[in-house]
Amino acid sequence: MTFGGAELNVAVSLARLGVPSAFVTKLPENDVAEACITEIRGLGVGTAHIRRGGGRMGVYYVERGAAQRGSTVIYDRKNSAIAESDPGEWDWRTVLGGATALHVTGITPALSQNCRIAMHDALTVAKEIGVTTFFDLNYRQKLWSTKDAGKVLAELLPLATHGVVSDHDADTLFGIRSKKTDTEKKQAEVAEKLTKRFGLTGIAMTRREQHSASRNGWGGMFYVGGSAHVSRQYEIDFIVDRVGGGDAFTAGIIYGVVNNKKPQDTVEFAAAASCLKHSIAGDYNLVTVAEVESLVGGDGSGRVQR
Amino acid sequence: MTFGGAELNVAVSLARLGVPSAFVTKLPENDVAEACITEIRGLGVGTAHIRRGGGRMGVYYVERGAAQRGSTVIYDRKNSAIAESDPGEWDWRTVLGGATALHVTGITPALSQNCRIAMHDALTVAKEIGVTTFFDLNYRQKLWSTKDAGKVLAELLPLATHGVVSDHDADTLFGIRSKKTDTEKKQAEVAEKLTKRFGLTGIAMTRREQHSASRNGWGGMFYVGGSAHVSRQYEIDFIVDRVGGGDAFTAGIIYGVVNNKKPQDTVEFAAAASCLKHSIAGDYNLVTVAEVESLVGGDGSGRVQR
Amino acid sequence: MTFGGAELNVAVSLARLGVPSAFVTKLPENDVAEACITEIRGLGVGTAHIRRGGGRMGVYYVERGAAQRGSTVIYDRKNSAIAESDPGEWDWRTVLGGATALHVTGITPALSQNCRIAMHDALTVAKEIGVTTFFDLNYRQKLWSTKDAGKVLAELLPLATHGVVSDHDADTLFGIRSKKTDTEKKQAEVAEKLTKRFGLTGIAMTRREQHSASRNGWGGMFYVGGSAHVSRQYEIDFIVDRVGGGDAFTAGIIYGVVNNKKPQDTVEFAAAASCLKHSIAGDYNLVTVAEVESLVGGDGSGRVQR
Amino acid sequence: MTFGGAELNVAVSLARLGVPSAFVTKLPENDVAEACITEIRGLGVGTAHIRRGGGRMGVYYVERGAAQRGSTVIYDRKNSAIAESDPGEWDWRTVLGGATALHVTGITPALSQNCRIAMHDALTVAKEIGVTTFFDLNYRQKLWSTKDAGKVLAELLPLATHGVVSDHDADTLFGIRSKKTDTEKKQAEVAEKLTKRFGLTGIAMTRREQHSASRNGWGGMFYVGGSAHVSRQYEIDFIVDRVGGGDAFTAGIIYGVVNNKKPQDTVEFAAAASCLKHSIAGDYNLVTVAEVESLVGGDGSGRVQR
Amino acid sequence: MTFGGAELNVAVSLARLGVPSAFVTKLPENDVAEACITEIRGLGVGTAHIRRGGGRMGVYYVERGAAQRGSTVIYDRKNSAIAESDPGEWDWRTVLGGATALHVTGITPALSQNCRIAMHDALTVAKEIGVTTFFDLNYRQKLWSTKDAGKVLAELLPLATHGVVSDHDADTLFGIRSKKTDTEKKQAEVAEKLTKRFGLTGIAMTRREQHSASRNGWGGMFYVGGSAHVSRQYEIDFIVDRVGGGDAFTAGIIYGVVNNKKPQDTVEFAAAASCLKHSIAGDYNLVTVAEVESLVGGDGSGRVQR
Amino acid sequence: MTFGGAELNVAVSLARLGVPSAFVTKLPENDVAEACITEIRGLGVGTAHIRRGGGRMGVYYVERGAAQRGSTVIYDRKNSAIAESDPGEWDWRTVLGGATALHVTGITPALSQNCRIAMHDALTVAKEIGVTTFFDLNYRQKLWSTKDAGKVLAELLPLATHGVVSDHDADTLFGIRSKKTDTEKKQAEVAEKLTKRFGLTGIAMTRREQHSASRNGWGGMFYVGGSAHVSRQYEIDFIVDRVGGGDAFTAGIIYGVVNNKKPQDTVEFAAAASCLKHSIAGDYNLVTVAEVESLVGGDGSGRVQR
Repeated sequence: MTFGGAELNVAVSLARLGVPSAFVTKLPENDVAEACITEIRGLGVGTAHIRRGGGRMGVYYVERGAAQRGSTVIYDRKNSAIAESDPGEWDWRTVLGGATALHVTGITPALSQNCRIAMHDALTVAKEIGVTTFFDLNYRQKLWSTKDAGKVLAELLPLATHGVVSDHDADTLFGIRSKKTDTEKKQAEVAEKLTKRFGLTGIAMTRREQHSASRNGWGGMFYVGGSAHVSRQYEIDFIVDRVGGGDAFTAGIIYGVVNNKKPQDTVEFAAAASCLKHSIAGDYNLVTVAEVESLVGGDGSGRVQR
Repeated sequence: MTFGGAELNVAVSLARLGVPSAFVTKLPENDVAEACITEIRGLGVGTAHIRRGGGRMGVYYVERGAAQRGSTVIYDRKNSAIAESDPGEWDWRTVLGGATALHVTGITPALSQNCRIAMHDALTVAKEIGVTTFFDLNYRQKLWSTKDAGKVLAELLPLATHGVVSDHDADTLFGIRSKKTDTEKKQAEVAEKLTKRFGLTGIAMTRREQHSASRNGWGGMFYVGGSAHVSRQYEIDFIVDRVGGGDAFTAGIIYGVVNNKKPQDTVEFAAAASCLKHSIAGDYNLVTVAEVESLVGGDGSGRVQR
Repeated sequence: MTFGGAELNVAVSLARLGVPSAFVTKLPENDVAEACITEIRGLGVGTAHIRRGGGRMGVYYVERGAAQRGSTVIYDRKNSAIAESDPGEWDWRTVLGGATALHVTGITPALSQNCRIAMHDALTVAKEIGVTTFFDLNYRQKLWSTKDAGKVLAELLPLATHGVVSDHDADTLFGIRSKKTDTEKKQAEVAEKLTKRFGLTGIAMTRREQHSASRNGWGGMFYVGGSAHVSRQYEIDFIVDRVGGGDAFTAGIIYGVVNNKKPQDTVEFAAAASCLKHSIAGDYNLVTVAEVESLVGGDGSGRVQR
Repeated sequence: MTFGGAELNVAVSLARLGVPSAFVTKLPENDVAEACITEIRGLGVGTAHIRRGGGRMGVYYVERGAAQRGSTVIYDRKNSAIAESDPGEWDWRTVLGGATALHVTGITPALSQNCRIAMHDALTVAKEIGVTTFFDLNYRQKLWSTKDAGKVLAELLPLATHGVVSDHDADTLFGIRSKKTDTEKKQAEVAEKLTKRFGLTGIAMTRREQHSASRNGWGGMFYVGGSAHVSRQYEIDFIVDRVGGGDAFTAGIIYGVVNNKKPQDTVEFAAAASCLKHSIAGDYNLVTVAEVESLVGGDGSGRVQR
Repeated sequence: MTFGGAELNVAVSLARLGVPSAFVTKLPENDVAEACITEIRGLGVGTAHIRRGGGRMGVYYVERGAAQRGSTVIYDRKNSAIAESDPGEWDWRTVLGGATALHVTGITPALSQNCRIAMHDALTVAKEIGVTTFFDLNYRQKLWSTKDAGKVLAELLPLATHGVVSDHDADTLFGIRSKKTDTEKKQAEVAEKLTKRFGLTGIAMTRREQHSASRNGWGGMFYVGGSAHVSRQYEIDFIVDRVGGGDAFTAGIIYGVVNNKKPQDTVEFAAAASCLKHSIAGDYNLVTVAEVESLVGGDGSGRVQR
Repeated sequence: MTFGGAELNVAVSLARLGVPSAFVTKLPENDVAEACITEIRGLGVGTAHIRRGGGRMGVYYVERGAAQRGSTVIYDRKNSAIAESDPGEWDWRTVLGGATALHVTGITPALSQNCRIAMHDALTVAKEIGVTTFFDLNYRQKLWSTKDAGKVLAELLPLATHGVVSDHDADTLFGIRSKKTDTEKKQAEVAEKLTKRFGLTGIAMTRREQHSASRNGWGGMFYVGGSAHVSRQYEIDFIVDRVGGGDAFTAGIIYGVVNNKKPQDTVEFAAAASCLKHSIAGDYNLVTVAEVESLVGGDGSGRVQR
């Protein structure tokens, strides 16, 4: 049993990369939630904005795949404390005061009407006070319909500054697509259209080549300032655990942006960080900046360090 | 510690694929046998024809291989309850009444003279009442000599309708071989000769390309109606456990035949089912029809299902 | 928790290959050391020359890598019993009397001044009484500077008959290098220069192609009698544990030399033995001569043995 | 992770004791529920009346206690499939047709209004067709208020023939109590009052003397035919897992009643069976009739059987 | 593998009891130390005063006992980072500024001369600025001689306000003893003499009755204001792990003192808290105030909480 | 999975107590037997007289008990290599030459006629060359009838010098019993009769008071020179694993006799050694002489050693 979740994974990654981060959520008043808070506080994630009470801890069951058999996930997160929380439980000006960046995902508004309101409020405040906002679309069809998601997310996305979006979701939710066959060009065109449609500063996309559940190609693209910056594409020849790979990429992009790195350096960092995540069991990406930079610098040989 | 064995693996596979199956054997009167029965009853295999008493549970020790080091198996199954059973313990008309298919392997007649008689009786009754019979030759040189096996199996095989035979065993036991160098053509010729020599309706063969203990090519062929139907050949790039792979293939062939699928669909189903087995620890193939059909339909990418 | 270490790994490998071996070291008077001795005595390594008392057991922590993430090792072996031992605790004429070969590594003189003296004494006695000596350079930069190591090892190496040296260490420590681009030719030239500079009979080198932490090319070279004998190069497509791979190679070379095998057979044996080590968890290479010879003979397919 | 629950524990116990049993519930359509069904089918519990779909699997987390620290349980079973089921999903005449006994607990009506209706229907049908009914009151204050529970359970209990009730619950819910200080006499008086108030045939009660989380006194009482039958009181000097102890006792009472055993024999059997449960990890009581009878017959010495 | 140590155990206990605490030490610059810091930060212990660099992590090996076989501990903590630290690495006015209490043990001055100086400095500053100081004598004869310890500790102890001392150590180190045979009276007399000799405000003592490694009597005494306050004596009938029991008691005493509880309440709290520790694996006492108060309030029955 | 067996347990105990011992048996030619030999060689037991080939390794399955549930053992050791061995495989004059003592058990002659012959031969040679012989009767009713065992053992026992016999077996097999009610006196009378009937020098008996599977009284008696020497009776309040307890006692008796200890010291040593065995998982008694003597000397408190 481990703790995890898209937003938490990003917060943990950032803390491990030396970026002060905090997790804003609601958890029930029980010892399981207490153990979760103990774990993430240890990993360096701020817990001051975690509200307690009501609802339950969401649960998911993962069956790890290999070769031709993909991993499967069974979600059981209805009626969680966060889904049943009241939007008024957080004063966003207090929460975001002093923050440089906010990260949200498209899973939250799928949970409940209250969550949509809370997220809308948070994004609105962030926009007003100039906090850079990363919105990972993360469309989950088991949670809501394409139609509902398309409508809600199209309202929320313009409140963000950066989107993390797959070309598949852009098509399904917003009808944004490209006819190009070259993946790089296709992703660039979709990203360009997204920035224009939703008034965004930048778009990040991962590029997974799914050879099997045990072997993937992996890299990413960061579209910003009108240009697509494409990372080196890694060949991951043995995957220990790919859950959390996308979150590790998003954390890498945020790391680059808040540290004012160049777009190309940002996407290379994000791709390398998330490439390494695939070799780590559990949802979290526990790598350090030095380990990521060593891979960016070319040492992907997996040599023993001694 | 797990339970397994060629015939049991086929019975479990079929139960998981929705084909009612039962395991006909004899097990001792002790708690280890009880645990085995509990497990397979849970998996949906009928246990009404399991006789109890005498002898012992056979045991085998497996050392799992990797890369250039193959797995090794130490057998310790002499004097098992089934080997010491009396052929008269089963009334085959009762056991097979209402059955559509019977599955037997060439391991059973190697165990004892009584086992040979029991198997001869079962096959004879099956033939009389029109039960389709699948005979997996499974020659084990550690159990009996090539000469004895060749003689006994040549007597028993004609009582079956379908054989599951490797081209290597066909050569060793019956001197049936092909000079063709192309594997497909070679297997087809051997299968054709087998059907003719033993008056069989069909022959199934697997095709394993052994790159290493961790990586195999895998597929199969089903020769029936005078034609060889060859499946897609899969590249399994990380093998979790290959024990039971052949049994999973046989179960897939039986699934196709008893469901009146076309030969090509049958062999594709069998190849996909047994390909997935390689990603599962333990002897049993626990996949469902939906998972197999998804792989047949082309999704061998091992994508996360969420 | 497991026991291991360069010299011990070689001793265990040799014992498993049927070559009587003994481990000469000093261990503290406690139950952890007792457990170590129990383990290696069980594996067939002689323990009569292990002195007891003083100091501590060295410890190292290994984080196992995968794909692009290399394994990392944290050493904590200062003040170990061997580092604090007195050179006079062993009478080398007694220890080496009746021995055919002596194996030492460049880690020992890095531990303490006393260790340097003990090693110098042992090598001197070995030379006098004609014991063949294998010196694995094993330069560890975390333990001492390039300058110190270069000086000390250059004094000790001529006392040996055979060196196990990487081309990287030859360059770093002794400035011995080759401008050749072909790896085989490059290694041969470096080996030739080493034998000449230090008056050695032979030089063994491994050849690791580091595709990732999970996949390596692997083979070796044995330069002796003025010629470089190069082994088949293996492709290890799933690495279980590469720690101890080099030690397994050295043990294979020693096995060949003490059994008077031809140089080519020796290096093929050493390469195959150490290739198999990569599929075994823990530091020790537990394979038998039969398993190694089967791989040398061509069966690297990892087929199930049953 | 294990499966369990009050009603299931009773069903498993009965199956292990050779009494055909079935579990009537609703479980979601996912692989976790599938695994649960596989497990209990293996243990011999009928699964034909398990409906599938909707809701989720309830979850509970147990922290096992020792000495002065009691075990703690965190419940997370709101919105489970059974709680959200429709009372009309079971045709009770079909379900109970041919049954000898029905077992229900007071947890079910606490889950939802629909569950109350379903339970009322089941009990009514059972009464009509003469099925003996065991109602384990099992009041859980974390699920509903004393007032609600008292009202609902007072309506349902008269529909049963036998109650399994603690004297504490009798007092809390129905104000039924005794001023006697001797535990035996006190329990007898409470039981007598319960049978009279609710028109029941019998009442079973356990008697736990809680020395610590690791050591308990344990026995029971079966009040029937106007007399209290008290079992031997066991001293359990090392508790492996007490969860499921009460359910094991209830199963023992049902075993006695459906086998027409005398009341004294019934309660001795129930006490011994549930005493043994405390030595088994997990919720289920896996003991056999022979093991229980051996303990009833006096062998509580825990001697090795060999 | 777990982390622990006398001072850390106290800090963790206090954090779990809601008393803000911090751990002042030095740890090496490696990933094992990083993991330790991650763990204790998660548990709520402040880590701002942990210096990094030099030395190593001390290690100890524990073999857990049972019945007549006591646990054994092998220490390997020479040359640890803290032992090799410089006394000037901490500015005690900064470290202790704002603190209410300081906890030290007699293990620290046994490690090195520098540690003695650092501890002397810390105690001196604490005295000057009025910080209440708890000194757990913790004499370890494997680390230093009775003579050295007696001399050094007699110099340091007067700088503290409270001592945690066993009557055995009082006798061995300072020749302070009592001829009384009643344990309570004996401990009271020794405590009185200690407070007088060293000018202390209070003395705390545990009282362990060692029936076996699996079963102990356990309680404590707090001598303050000229009176001995003796806690209830618990009978712990199954010990999971007694390591850290004494530290849990000290933490309980500190909890009482800093919260201005009455001496009797303080010692009852400390005894109950440390009694519960014996049921928890690992060095830390993870219980909460509510759990301790429930035991103080009389519920030592280890009942299931549900 | 662990290795064990009555004779092996005694040999391991003796080796751990510093008495050179060797295990005389036959094991098959496979890797499981190899692992067994590796383990016991590590523990210091001589393996030179272990013959290899034929048959199988016997297997037994243990279900560990607790409280009222006793452990259960399922034997599967028919057709083991030793049972099928030829009596001529050992030259007893060679095997026993230089030996001080021989230990045999009544399990061996139950295995096969050949085993009876081998044991008769060994005992005869031992008697001729004056080797002290310990015969542990160890009657196993699952292996042979009381009648056969009584007859065979009555023929073999007189060839030994010392018997290890329970009063229960003395009665069942030889009709030797006592009407005394006091256990000490009863055991003494039975021992006296046994020495007289079979011409033995001494008789050792254990005394187990079976409170439960978790708690036992434990001690022993050594009848020699016409007097019964009775050890202190231990109360073992938490049993980790009692399998091998009797063998540990026998090893303690042998230790005392071969070291010429007084009878009282011998039985105290044996009782203490075997008392400690109950706290160790697995069949072997791994304690040292110092640990046993510490318990004999009175320290049964299970105090932490640090």
